[in-house]
Amino acid sequence: MQKTKIIFERMRGLPVSRQAVEIVERKGLGHPDYIIDAACEASSVALSKYYIEKFGRILHHNLDKGLLVGGKATPRLGGGTVDEPIYILIAGRATLYVNACGERHDVPIGEIVRGAVKNFIKNNFRFLDPDKHVVIDYKIRQGSEDLINVVESESEVPLANDTSFGVGFAPFTPLENLVLETERMINSPKFKTIVKESGEDCKVMGVRMKDEVVLTVADGIVSHLTPDLDHYVSVKEEIAERVSNLAAKLMENFSVDVYVNTADKIVEGDSENSSIYLTVTGTSAERGDDGNTGRGNRASGLITPNRQMSLEATAGKNSISHVGKIYNVVAFKIADRIYKETGAFEEIYVRLLSQIGRRIDQPLSISIQYIPSRPINSTIKYEVSEILLSELRNITKITELVLEGKVTLF
Amino acid sequence: MQKTKIIFERMRGLPVSRQAVEIVERKGLGHPDYIIDAACEASSVALSKYYIEKFGRILHHNLDKGLLVGGKATPRLGGGTVDEPIYILIAGRATLYVNACGERHDVPIGEIVRGAVKNFIKNNFRFLDPDKHVVIDYKIRQGSEDLINVVESESEVPLANDTSFGVGFAPFTPLENLVLETERMINSPKFKTIVKESGEDCKVMGVRMKDEVVLTVADGIVSHLTPDLDHYVSVKEEIAERVSNLAAKLMENFSVDVYVNTADKIVEGDSENSSIYLTVTGTSAERGDDGNTGRGNRASGLITPNRQMSLEATAGKNSISHVGKIYNVVAFKIADRIYKETGAFEEIYVRLLSQIGRRIDQPLSISIQYIPSRPINSTIKYEVSEILLSELRNITKITELVLEGKVTLF
Amino acid sequence: MQKTKIIFERMRGLPVSRQAVEIVERKGLGHPDYIIDAACEASSVALSKYYIEKFGRILHHNLDKGLLVGGKATPRLGGGTVDEPIYILIAGRATLYVNACGERHDVPIGEIVRGAVKNFIKNNFRFLDPDKHVVIDYKIRQGSEDLINVVESESEVPLANDTSFGVGFAPFTPLENLVLETERMINSPKFKTIVKESGEDCKVMGVRMKDEVVLTVADGIVSHLTPDLDHYVSVKEEIAERVSNLAAKLMENFSVDVYVNTADKIVEGDSENSSIYLTVTGTSAERGDDGNTGRGNRASGLITPNRQMSLEATAGKNSISHVGKIYNVVAFKIADRIYKETGAFEEIYVRLLSQIGRRIDQPLSISIQYIPSRPINSTIKYEVSEILLSELRNITKITELVLEGKVTLF
Amino acid sequence: MQKTKIIFERMRGLPVSRQAVEIVERKGLGHPDYIIDAACEASSVALSKYYIEKFGRILHHNLDKGLLVGGKATPRLGGGTVDEPIYILIAGRATLYVNACGERHDVPIGEIVRGAVKNFIKNNFRFLDPDKHVVIDYKIRQGSEDLINVVESESEVPLANDTSFGVGFAPFTPLENLVLETERMINSPKFKTIVKESGEDCKVMGVRMKDEVVLTVADGIVSHLTPDLDHYVSVKEEIAERVSNLAAKLMENFSVDVYVNTADKIVEGDSENSSIYLTVTGTSAERGDDGNTGRGNRASGLITPNRQMSLEATAGKNSISHVGKIYNVVAFKIADRIYKETGAFEEIYVRLLSQIGRRIDQPLSISIQYIPSRPINSTIKYEVSEILLSELRNITKITELVLEGKVTLF
Repeated sequence: MQKTKIIFERMRGLPVSRQAVEIVERKGLGHPDYIIDAACEASSVALSKYYIEKFGRILHHNLDKGLLVGGKATPRLGGGTVDEPIYILIAGRATLYVNACGERHDVPIGEIVRGAVKNFIKNNFRFLDPDKHVVIDYKIRQGSEDLINVVESESEVPLANDTSFGVGFAPFTPLENLVLETERMINSPKFKTIVKESGEDCKVMGVRMKDEVVLTVADGIVSHLTPDLDHYVSVKEEIAERVSNLAAKLMENFSVDVYVNTADKIVEGDSENSSIYLTVTGTSAERGDDGNTGRGNRASGLITPNRQMSLEATAGKNSISHVGKIYNVVAFKIADRIYKETGAFEEIYVRLLSQIGRRIDQPLSISIQYIPSRPINSTIKYEVSEILLSELRNITKITELVLEGKVTLF
Repeated sequence: MQKTKIIFERMRGLPVSRQAVEIVERKGLGHPDYIIDAACEASSVALSKYYIEKFGRILHHNLDKGLLVGGKATPRLGGGTVDEPIYILIAGRATLYVNACGERHDVPIGEIVRGAVKNFIKNNFRFLDPDKHVVIDYKIRQGSEDLINVVESESEVPLANDTSFGVGFAPFTPLENLVLETERMINSPKFKTIVKESGEDCKVMGVRMKDEVVLTVADGIVSHLTPDLDHYVSVKEEIAERVSNLAAKLMENFSVDVYVNTADKIVEGDSENSSIYLTVTGTSAERGDDGNTGRGNRASGLITPNRQMSLEATAGKNSISHVGKIYNVVAFKIADRIYKETGAFEEIYVRLLSQIGRRIDQPLSISIQYIPSRPINSTIKYEVSEILLSELRNITKITELVLEGKVTLF
Repeated sequence: MQKTKIIFERMRGLPVSRQAVEIVERKGLGHPDYIIDAACEASSVALSKYYIEKFGRILHHNLDKGLLVGGKATPRLGGGTVDEPIYILIAGRATLYVNACGERHDVPIGEIVRGAVKNFIKNNFRFLDPDKHVVIDYKIRQGSEDLINVVESESEVPLANDTSFGVGFAPFTPLENLVLETERMINSPKFKTIVKESGEDCKVMGVRMKDEVVLTVADGIVSHLTPDLDHYVSVKEEIAERVSNLAAKLMENFSVDVYVNTADKIVEGDSENSSIYLTVTGTSAERGDDGNTGRGNRASGLITPNRQMSLEATAGKNSISHVGKIYNVVAFKIADRIYKETGAFEEIYVRLLSQIGRRIDQPLSISIQYIPSRPINSTIKYEVSEILLSELRNITKITELVLEGKVTLF
Repeated sequence: MQKTKIIFERMRGLPVSRQAVEIVERKGLGHPDYIIDAACEASSVALSKYYIEKFGRILHHNLDKGLLVGGKATPRLGGGTVDEPIYILIAGRATLYVNACGERHDVPIGEIVRGAVKNFIKNNFRFLDPDKHVVIDYKIRQGSEDLINVVESESEVPLANDTSFGVGFAPFTPLENLVLETERMINSPKFKTIVKESGEDCKVMGVRMKDEVVLTVADGIVSHLTPDLDHYVSVKEEIAERVSNLAAKLMENFSVDVYVNTADKIVEGDSENSSIYLTVTGTSAERGDDGNTGRGNRASGLITPNRQMSLEATAGKNSISHVGKIYNVVAFKIADRIYKETGAFEEIYVRLLSQIGRRIDQPLSISIQYIPSRPINSTIKYEVSEILLSELRNITKITELVLEGKVTLF
């Protein structure tokens, strides 16, 4: 058994929540980068389930490269058309056929991947029709080494497929919470029944300078539900008000200014010369905004430039051996548990480093960086170790959680 | 004139170079993520030059979404073939035609973009033939608003096209220097004449735990220059030795272990059953490794999870108004100048935050975080302000530097 | 007014029905060449209707180039899967935007074309799901000259867009009737309720040597409705019997042998080693059989190598000015009317030759070749002239018939 | 040994050359349909040669479906640019890997197909640069049955892969000769040195009404070699004159009117308002004219609606077992030999009908239709039989001729 080096290190700086400037962003459900992340991830999950059903376990694949090319649309107050479809291309490698018992079994990769992307869109958008508005294609090749894996014993803990690392932190700052919850609220079923004009493409950016927060929401208002300019303005006001109410709850000791669609130029009573943010389908992908996998939110669901971040795309990677996915998820889980269960820290960072070919439950090193909230004695350290060990022992459970959609990946 | 808020903030932690664990990575010239970054950037630069030549200034465009789908190759000791080409797809928006003086002028976008990608490959690879081994395609649409910009006065400082931010730091840690210089050495013309078997696809990962450094180099050895297994082993040894020599110079007070192609499994005298890292063309893109724009190195040329990082892709964005590109470049320039010219800091972070519609020389806020190396008095603060102001005054010069290829972008 | 040269010419040979060898073929509904023809034509019809609705008349377009790339499927007795989708690409030119009243109107070309292809598949196939089994894409460019046409007066008879010709004949030989009716029967709703296992991909080839006819039917039997080899054999027998009955009616004075799926190799009781013609979806396009527009049936609905044939694809061309489409349709109509109304001919060929830029109701020349069944006097010639003139006067009615799907095009 | 039925049949009509109306067309080298035919055929030939080199014989393939999507260009008198590339897509099936001696051998299909298309363009066009002006892609799948063929004995005569037929005739009429030779002259190296402005895209249509011939040449004049309108007109005149001279030689007893680029509208001294046929690269494919495989010339090199024609595309089919290719070629060869060697016929048609699974040297039937020039006695019939038999015995030689480019296919 290989030994994992564990390094505890006290950080001497301020936790992010007390730094002078903090920037947090979330690209919401309908953002092109989110869509392509979700499309890759849905493909991986569907493929994994197929592998399990047919072969008893998840075979090698990696679908973490994707491209969304925006379409062409003409949104108009009270109407609008989608003129050219959005183009989604999923790329990567997978086990496309298996020779078992002397017989060749072909994986219906087209049906799996395209079906998964369609279902994601169907289940998450009200006005984006995957059959009418989207061309879904894929370029997925058989990996050369893949066949071999099939005969491997399946009892073993998987080996890391790369030298890579994952990073997680806890707790979220108030601003991080606010940004995350704002997008979740706007894209919740309840909100969609109240402010049905709000599009799924919603990007939230929060900037805090000391106690002052500016929260900017860009939301593509659905054109055919918005008959005129006055209506548009009232929708924006309603969104702003509801977000302000949320902010008042989540950041009560701060001054929070909320802005919606700041790039608008509204000439009252003159929709012709006004420039506003309308979409036919709820996403700007309809009009030429493109997306790339791995360019959106991190495994926290956020983009947090004040924080250490991994650049790995979690979306689309297999959840068995791809440490660029698993270690990010587990690092957040560990950080969260340490923070909550010990109650001893003001801020915690957890970094796990893999080495290609090592068992994934035995990282090359684990680094715990912390700002304590009270003195760290050996009891606390022991608790931390126990959490670490139990999470590593159960690391293969991450796979299940990913397949069930129970972890935040982006 | 809008005011820019400037915030100085002392950081209380340790500089990265003195933290217990440090991870640094660089994806080299031939890495699929690097190739697609470079392809997008070459396209933007060529298009910008065309716009300048024809219309006197750079018109709106944004080519920062790309996909490289790996090909299929059969490398063999002493030979090998490329069986299916690499597929490169450049996506984004551009000004595709201009109505000037009552006449429509069409931009030869195909020739510009495809020519630029080809030239990048021709000028940087010895064995990757863009005409034989690569299919280059593009999906670039006319932006709806683009035409308008053409009639705008060109004397003005451009307005930020997005609410975004850039971050830079100084100085580089010894490990950062080592990782960067290792890749640069391996991909230098000189090295290629000495160890001609070394492929352009070279990924360097450095991990430091206190004083101990593990430097892992993955390099796709060129198959037709490598007749047998012994030769392969000797090439690896030569690379390792030369990197070790470099490390000895750049990190003399550390213990540095250098590994090359650690995933190899070599069965002596039995190439059949050995598993080694060979490429026909010098890049793993030939064999199914895919790439996405914006997934590789940051504007430092490195991936530095210990550091604050921007997730923006610099590659392919226009260098006139796209703050996701310009602010990252200028933040590094400011940090570097402050560090060198004042001599007062151990570590500096510079963050610039834009607001959509604001002049780019007037960011919404600038945040300077620092660890001082000596007491910071008002003279030093004045010096810092002067550097800031002069760089902002000259921010439009960044464009030129980008067009001339004089700044590191990834 | 330009004069049309009319040439009557007596043919001295035997009518096809009395020649020693006759070959007739029909590619049925589910044949890849038929599908891509139908996809191009459905696109043109939908686009024409859109133009009429929005702009009052059909604008310039030509969508007569298409490609169907076969998918990948694993049909199995009693089941089967579609592993990779069929790929349909519609190419050509169209009027993509119109500047009317100072406002630009964009044509939702994506929705129109893709919707039309989907509807064709949905309405004609039972087991081919356009959303699951087919990727539908298009590459349609704006023609440079197209905009101009919009301002043209619309009262005029259109001008021929090309120097081209159309050819038609009458009557059909008994074998031609049999081949046509065989496919129509097999793909009729009634037949599909009785022999539901018969796939839509049905190719019928008839060869007559003197009085002996060999009729070969290739039909992709639907796999999930066919549990075992015995069932498969009985389906083939049922098809053969029903076709034989039809043949007995339509060619009662001939000996007709009917064969179904002659390439099968059946090893009784051993489906493993048998080679049979199964499809999951009813079309061989699911398994790599490709199609190109204009490669299937002529405007007669048949391929008739004994006959003069036009090589023009009728599918996808606009039905306003494209003589390669209109002249083929009208030539068949004229031949049919002359044959039936005069009762004076054993065989008639009608050829219309256009000249680019001439009004389409004034062909450069019309050639009537005939084998008389009784002496041709001036009364009959007058009748023929009257038929010609009336059809040319009403040539613009062809457009309507095409839009209503009331003419055979392939 | 299976018996081939041979049917001699006297035709009672007039030979085409004496019919009242005759229409003949040839799409020249640079026509989009010709280019895509040639691209498919070049791919098949290159692949066949590869198979022979590596495996000793031609393996199964069929690359006869292709699509050329026209580019976008702005030709201008004295200059011009190609704005968007031509897109060529080769589709079909091939043997992509072979398991021989327990080892898998992958066929470098990408390099073969794309290299072949490039070479065709490089060797045949002066101003069309395959690397700059063309995107070459392919969608070629492994046929399911293909692997099996590899182990078949190779001494055998191949079996027909389809039920199909080929048709040939002799002799050519004077008009057929003229149309063919006109295009060959215009695209000959000699002509290109004299009238270097003449583009490779040259379509020739000949219409004969009794003794009067109208020969229409459409030729895309190369823009950068044509400085002004006067020059353009003089180029057209020179082409017309040289074609007239050829016509005077080949059809001396006819009145031949030659027209070049009849769709032009020339306003003297006003190039702005003139509409002329210019190309930057010599082919209209640069500007949106699309092409499909099998839509151009038949195996005679011509389109001859007065004649029996096969609709099979010869281009891209394998020349070993694909009767749709081989039988068309051999039918022309037989017809030609019978016509020349016996001297007994005014017109001859030869039709060969295959049956799927039969040896290709034993067609199901051969039909010889003829118009005699002198009485047909048993000696002549014997001669005809001998020619038939010798050509069938040597039918596998067709393969060689095809690989050497020594037969006309389109």
